[in-house]
Amino acid sequence: MTEPNGFTQVTEGIGANSTSQANPYGPNPSDYLSNVNSFQLIESTLREGEQFANAFFDTEKKIEIAKALDDFGVDYIELTSPVASEQSRKDCEAICKLGLKAKILTHIRCHMDDAKVAVETGVDGVDVVIGTSQYLRQYSHGKDMNYIAKSAIEVIEFVKSKGIEIRFSSEDSFRSDLVDLLNIYRTVDKIGVNRVGIADTVGCANPRQVYELVRTLKSVVNCEIECHFHNDTGCAIANAYTALEGGAKLIDVSVLGIGERNGITPLGGLMARMIAADRDYVLSKYKLHKLRDLENLVAEAIQVNVPFNNPITGFCAFTHKAGIHAKAILANPSTYEILNPSDFGLTRYIHFANRLTGWNAIKSRVDQLNLDLSDEQCKEVTNKIKKLGDVRQLNIDDVDSIIKDFHANMGTPLLKPVDGPEVKKQKTL
Amino acid sequence: MTEPNGFTQVTEGIGANSTSQANPYGPNPSDYLSNVNSFQLIESTLREGEQFANAFFDTEKKIEIAKALDDFGVDYIELTSPVASEQSRKDCEAICKLGLKAKILTHIRCHMDDAKVAVETGVDGVDVVIGTSQYLRQYSHGKDMNYIAKSAIEVIEFVKSKGIEIRFSSEDSFRSDLVDLLNIYRTVDKIGVNRVGIADTVGCANPRQVYELVRTLKSVVNCEIECHFHNDTGCAIANAYTALEGGAKLIDVSVLGIGERNGITPLGGLMARMIAADRDYVLSKYKLHKLRDLENLVAEAIQVNVPFNNPITGFCAFTHKAGIHAKAILANPSTYEILNPSDFGLTRYIHFANRLTGWNAIKSRVDQLNLDLSDEQCKEVTNKIKKLGDVRQLNIDDVDSIIKDFHANMGTPLLKPVDGPEVKKQKTL
Repeated sequence: MTEPNGFTQVTEGIGANSTSQANPYGPNPSDYLSNVNSFQLIESTLREGEQFANAFFDTEKKIEIAKALDDFGVDYIELTSPVASEQSRKDCEAICKLGLKAKILTHIRCHMDDAKVAVETGVDGVDVVIGTSQYLRQYSHGKDMNYIAKSAIEVIEFVKSKGIEIRFSSEDSFRSDLVDLLNIYRTVDKIGVNRVGIADTVGCANPRQVYELVRTLKSVVNCEIECHFHNDTGCAIANAYTALEGGAKLIDVSVLGIGERNGITPLGGLMARMIAADRDYVLSKYKLHKLRDLENLVAEAIQVNVPFNNPITGFCAFTHKAGIHAKAILANPSTYEILNPSDFGLTRYIHFANRLTGWNAIKSRVDQLNLDLSDEQCKEVTNKIKKLGDVRQLNIDDVDSIIKDFHANMGTPLLKPVDGPEVKKQKTL
Repeated sequence: MTEPNGFTQVTEGIGANSTSQANPYGPNPSDYLSNVNSFQLIESTLREGEQFANAFFDTEKKIEIAKALDDFGVDYIELTSPVASEQSRKDCEAICKLGLKAKILTHIRCHMDDAKVAVETGVDGVDVVIGTSQYLRQYSHGKDMNYIAKSAIEVIEFVKSKGIEIRFSSEDSFRSDLVDLLNIYRTVDKIGVNRVGIADTVGCANPRQVYELVRTLKSVVNCEIECHFHNDTGCAIANAYTALEGGAKLIDVSVLGIGERNGITPLGGLMARMIAADRDYVLSKYKLHKLRDLENLVAEAIQVNVPFNNPITGFCAFTHKAGIHAKAILANPSTYEILNPSDFGLTRYIHFANRLTGWNAIKSRVDQLNLDLSDEQCKEVTNKIKKLGDVRQLNIDDVDSIIKDFHANMGTPLLKPVDGPEVKKQKTL
């Protein structure tokens, strides 16, 4: 592993980072409907993700991504509607023929024209969506709730007759009338959909709203609840988690969260949230050590950089800098880590080459260099390092030079002989 | 404004995006303690942000950032402890002398040695922190709760005697014993701190836990509550929002969220969340159109790219792609936007040069090109565009060529003359 400037990799002396006991507050006893410990993923990089501004996936790339998602362990893979374009239909058919473990879905408008094409592609299920907010009813399709219910029934019964899964979702659910929503959900539940979907299409929802709506819906329908959260106001991961607490079962995600505008709940970010909640379940289902490769695959395909502050795989997600943090991490990583980097095939670093460093971090570097300095001497050399760190950005070489010079000068006592000059001066830094 | 490939800027025919009525679910009546409409910001780019791996701010850069934050309108600016290094102390003094509108704070350990230096710097207040979780008590400072209370009382009384503000915060609050926490908070509240702080130091908290803890604490103390959320599991924005709902008043933020590991609640992301909740309040306090410059200033200083999917300022945060989205956005942007880009001095785009495009988006481009095509003709040319979009990634030139060719060929009837060849063939694409 490359060692970036100013960092050192820390692996020795560290026990398992058991997060299962980390949080004394634990699950809320009122969450008896919670699916935090039994959630499933609907991976939509090849549908929602294709709506990301930069995304153009050719057939070969789609197949590569689908295989990587399947290998990672996602439960469903959702594909662009086969009526979006001729090639979209062909790609959908091609991915259905791959024989993946994940079930393949396609995502269509609530319309028989689309449904008829979709069921012929070989998918395991169809995700149907229609706008239910006043905004979308007025400016998108122009239909009322009666028309929506009638179309939904027709499409659902048709898809069911083909023996494949069917999900009905409202669109812009959090700006839809609650009674309208519950009415249509109850109607489609009675016909026998596999899932109903709640979609925060514009990214306006907040966690407690999500919890309330999911809990309410849970008392109205018998089928599973799927949730889809856009990230315009930065709550897509938290909303997904809170939805699971409320009883939703399935969360829509995409790699790096790519989708319309700035996207939806990211796969990696949700993994971070869920492993903090139930490490055993997450590790039993998903190959977390493949997350970085998966993100790099998609990032390269859409020509973006993985964000510097990405959950888990951001370049400094496991880098500890301030002296007080470094000291505690060296004693026990659980002090300042809720995630264990090794669960993701990653490594933690102590960033000691800076003015915020402390003597514990420097002592650890001294040990790595196989030098012998007392605690007092480590404190002294730390002060020298902090002084240089006040002047400019440091790298490991700077720190190592200071330490080695200090050590080299130790062979000779620094006290002046009784009647002579200091024998050897320390180099000025 | 530069027009990226495949996009078109959309400004005409668009009314104000009134978000105040956007969400029929509205505030929860049980949130009578909510500060969603009256929150304050403690901006910590120059403290927490300095703990970001890449951060090295020299005096000049610190002053530039402090001035930009002040201009933006943050309520407090928090600085690195003056005991971190000699230059840290000098910089703290220099920023205190700038005469900014924002109050200046510095952040220290709960120790008299630190407090004595801090009060001499000229700050308006001191933020004191001490680890209260079992992890930190065992592996960081090694003290019990009695010792913590005793130190806290000494430091708080000393700082108060100097006539400046004092905050006491626990560290790793969500892994601390609840009774211990409430005890120490009640103790320091009785002495008369200005604020108590809750800190999710490891980023393990989830929104409903945050709400519960804030509500509980609100019933124990009379002072204001400040919250600090790390983003390891992607909930830092949502947790901040939920804390405000529960009655917290102040949120710690940093530009781009920079801080230890992958950081804390980002200023921009929280602005997105808060403007969706109370646009008038946010616009009255903060200069949102300076957000992008502020982020660019810090991103450049720490040598990172603004994440592609950053809230508000990510390059595609206001870009709409799928045909069904583009159609509705053209009719009314509120259909698929909870944020109005013009509030941030930004612009929305329709991405029409792709295979997911629809004829409404293409018709809008035809209009921009001042060409005259009927709806049926727009649908026809849209099919041609989608066909090419199936083969490769498109840019605006591709689409414009197809439209112009199509239009140019319209002058001549495409029907064959009765007894002759077709007069003019359309160009093959």
